[in-house]
Amino acid sequence: MKDQPPMNGAESLVRSLSNAGVDVCFANPGTSEMQFVDALDRTRLMRCVLGLFEGVVSGAADGYARMAGKPAVTLLHLAPGMANAGANLHNAKKARSPMLNLVGNHALRHLRYDAPLTADLAGTAAVFSDWVRTAQSVETIAKDAIEGLAVAKGHPGRIATLIAPADIGWEPGGVMVEPMEPSGPRALDKDMVKHAVAALGPGCVIICGGTVLEDPASTRLLEGIAAQTGAELMAPTSNRRIERGAGRAAIPRVPYPINMAIERLSKFRRAILIEAQAPVAFFAYPDRPSLLLPEACEVIQLSDFDQDGRAAVQALADSIDAKPGQMADRPRITAPSAGPLTDHALSAAIVSALPEGAIIIDESLTSATEVESMSAGAPPHSWLSLTGGAIGIGPPLATGAAIAAADRPVVTLQADGSAMYTIQALWTQAREQLNITTIIFANKSYDLLKRELYNVGTNPGPDALNMLDLRRPELDFCALAKGMGVPSARVECAAELHRVLSAAINEPGPFLIEAIL
Amino acid sequence: MKDQPPMNGAESLVRSLSNAGVDVCFANPGTSEMQFVDALDRTRLMRCVLGLFEGVVSGAADGYARMAGKPAVTLLHLAPGMANAGANLHNAKKARSPMLNLVGNHALRHLRYDAPLTADLAGTAAVFSDWVRTAQSVETIAKDAIEGLAVAKGHPGRIATLIAPADIGWEPGGVMVEPMEPSGPRALDKDMVKHAVAALGPGCVIICGGTVLEDPASTRLLEGIAAQTGAELMAPTSNRRIERGAGRAAIPRVPYPINMAIERLSKFRRAILIEAQAPVAFFAYPDRPSLLLPEACEVIQLSDFDQDGRAAVQALADSIDAKPGQMADRPRITAPSAGPLTDHALSAAIVSALPEGAIIIDESLTSATEVESMSAGAPPHSWLSLTGGAIGIGPPLATGAAIAAADRPVVTLQADGSAMYTIQALWTQAREQLNITTIIFANKSYDLLKRELYNVGTNPGPDALNMLDLRRPELDFCALAKGMGVPSARVECAAELHRVLSAAINEPGPFLIEAIL
Repeated sequence: MKDQPPMNGAESLVRSLSNAGVDVCFANPGTSEMQFVDALDRTRLMRCVLGLFEGVVSGAADGYARMAGKPAVTLLHLAPGMANAGANLHNAKKARSPMLNLVGNHALRHLRYDAPLTADLAGTAAVFSDWVRTAQSVETIAKDAIEGLAVAKGHPGRIATLIAPADIGWEPGGVMVEPMEPSGPRALDKDMVKHAVAALGPGCVIICGGTVLEDPASTRLLEGIAAQTGAELMAPTSNRRIERGAGRAAIPRVPYPINMAIERLSKFRRAILIEAQAPVAFFAYPDRPSLLLPEACEVIQLSDFDQDGRAAVQALADSIDAKPGQMADRPRITAPSAGPLTDHALSAAIVSALPEGAIIIDESLTSATEVESMSAGAPPHSWLSLTGGAIGIGPPLATGAAIAAADRPVVTLQADGSAMYTIQALWTQAREQLNITTIIFANKSYDLLKRELYNVGTNPGPDALNMLDLRRPELDFCALAKGMGVPSARVECAAELHRVLSAAINEPGPFLIEAIL
Repeated sequence: MKDQPPMNGAESLVRSLSNAGVDVCFANPGTSEMQFVDALDRTRLMRCVLGLFEGVVSGAADGYARMAGKPAVTLLHLAPGMANAGANLHNAKKARSPMLNLVGNHALRHLRYDAPLTADLAGTAAVFSDWVRTAQSVETIAKDAIEGLAVAKGHPGRIATLIAPADIGWEPGGVMVEPMEPSGPRALDKDMVKHAVAALGPGCVIICGGTVLEDPASTRLLEGIAAQTGAELMAPTSNRRIERGAGRAAIPRVPYPINMAIERLSKFRRAILIEAQAPVAFFAYPDRPSLLLPEACEVIQLSDFDQDGRAAVQALADSIDAKPGQMADRPRITAPSAGPLTDHALSAAIVSALPEGAIIIDESLTSATEVESMSAGAPPHSWLSLTGGAIGIGPPLATGAAIAAADRPVVTLQADGSAMYTIQALWTQAREQLNITTIIFANKSYDLLKRELYNVGTNPGPDALNMLDLRRPELDFCALAKGMGVPSARVECAAELHRVLSAAINEPGPFLIEAIL
């Protein structure tokens, strides 16, 4: 070992994180991160995945965490890079996905001068992180990273951001640090369990989210509790990951449209929340409430996000001696015959092509609305959705999920307007040869916003509709895919969609289908 | 008027801003901005320009401000939208471009609940703004906007951000507000003028930036001062806008590479700063200083950014009775003959095609490095550069500049890696049929970072070089352009580049040239 140079700060960090189980780095580095690029290069301890835009990096790290159940590290460049990552960090934070961001900053001595890239990096990081620290010395930067990693891995998952001044990365004197145990979930309140048990029965809804939905045993047990007591089950509108399909529980989600949500929840008098909050409208509207449960509904927070929802389900079941529910056979959807891509035919074409183990990335918004109900009887699969409402999550999330689960096909249900925020992810999909099939629902408008325009009580004229229209010029997603090395097909027929999608799922590498609606 | 509904907050804001001279809105709206979309639609007082990504919106507003000399308003959606706009807001802030951002937020009553899109919007805005306010009532929102506009328009230009809760937009009771006069520049210090006059002479450098470079009369006067005293002139590395070309001053910029910058500045003993700061390295490097002037150099801040640099130049000239300089005839570059796209041939092909009044957007980074020196003798033109170091400014900046100066052709000198951060701007260029020719310098790598990797003293291996390589897969910019409705050509010959560029400049609408290096 005598020829080895003394370890610098960057290398101590990379080696310590690798030793703690971090083996993927999603990166969009700049000059101030060159010593980390160098350390990753020399140690070869992590798979480095390059994104052409930081929103791809953060969305991919989220997708990775959702499927791997552990954090990746991201490598970002100064305040503008952190800001570019922000929208998908926001989504990841709302998903409670574990993630460790490593953001380079100017060398400490350089910060006092107003260099062009100088900005309030800690302030930018704070908005989209649960934990932020700025490394202060070469001896402690690895310890900072290991502490941040433990925070990220704590139940139910947090966004930790370590700011790394460039000089701390390049100076010698780095110190390897052993892994730290993350803190476990906060204990359940036994009185709250009794309270919840007493609330079970008709007129009661159990709203369960977070890690509960990721565990088929827990959701089956919930079905048993519901069957035995007459309580109903619901899931939040947006979730980090749901394990679902044939033989698994099929728990309906709170609908996104506010009127449907209010109507759907109107009958409940008691709500038990497990890793979920009381349902709140995505947006406020004139003359509509913010909270969606009836005002008189009693709300029991059985498990908050930082508690163990699965243990809460078990405690409920133990209290009433409930057994796992019997799952009814649900119909398998068959491939549609030739015909136009109506919402129904589109949904059937997709669902009938899903193999066991598929990972569905859902940023479909207003299209293919029947996929969810139809796929309740499809082979078991994972469903990852847009958690924070910041559009542009689909292609990056798919990228990270595919990195984490290389043997499982990923199908992205993608609204066209939203796709354009982070379309650069296609390039990473091609570069890494990931088995991802992206279906673009080309309705050529911000269709969701058109509905919202009417919701706020306006009577839109040509300028308003023009601002929500994507037809002038038409986006050609097959050309965009070609530009980034992804093969594609344009499809207008439901039978053809089924055929093309089935083929793409069975082939390695990415594929894009532009479904003309 | 009796049939007219009472004006809501959104309409009072739009009408007041329009009355104060704001006539362009760059927008990427969401649900919480629907009442502003509606107000823009009903009043038809502003040109609404849609961007498919918020970084396009903020970069376009910057380009507009640089050419129009006044702010546009942007329309952004909550904290994630603000974050997505952040990188180009950072560039605009460093350029001191005037801009007014209108960012929708949840209704006040909705904010207490943790709705999916809830985040610290004011915190996000603060990082990239000089002024942030959250509107508190429907009666005062127009006043807030008018005050923000005045802040933005103050010398030398600021980023003002008004956060608009949705309910304040939709409630009736809006009040029109008259325009406010922005504050003028802070007075010059007369002792500092004397001090600067005494410093003139050989060994003195006048570093002038900001509004001085936008005014050919001022820079000609500076040439006269230099000729008379033996002082030398320099400009900062990055500038909001330089008016240059034949018959105008040709002031060299401080080079970007740190060693070249230190060498270039090493001979100076006195520096007079006019709307400029003491040159600082873009990044810190091991064993290199942060400040680029020699340690012993005396620095005289004749005009800070908030003072009137043009008046400072006039004061210097008056003190020594200097006259405008005589501009030497500089060579016109002729079109190159057929041959490969070497840096020299590439630069000549571009410069020889530039007509009078061209607007050059410079995000060329490591390519076409001779364009700047060669174009000193080209017909008079404007030169807009990447001011804050946050890459991804070119296509958006071009978009806004073209909106502001419809009768002038825009030529974007664009590095390929940087282009991918905000490539969505091409769609807006096609939608608005702007005469913009984007030349992509396809070197297929983060070439700048490769150089920086060596600068921090590393000896990169395959993983590091791989992270800076854009070849796997190759980006096809012509396909990307087609995907967004922009015609294009791929060029490998210098004579052909000249021919294609000349034709594109003379045709209306956007065009993209992928120059294979």
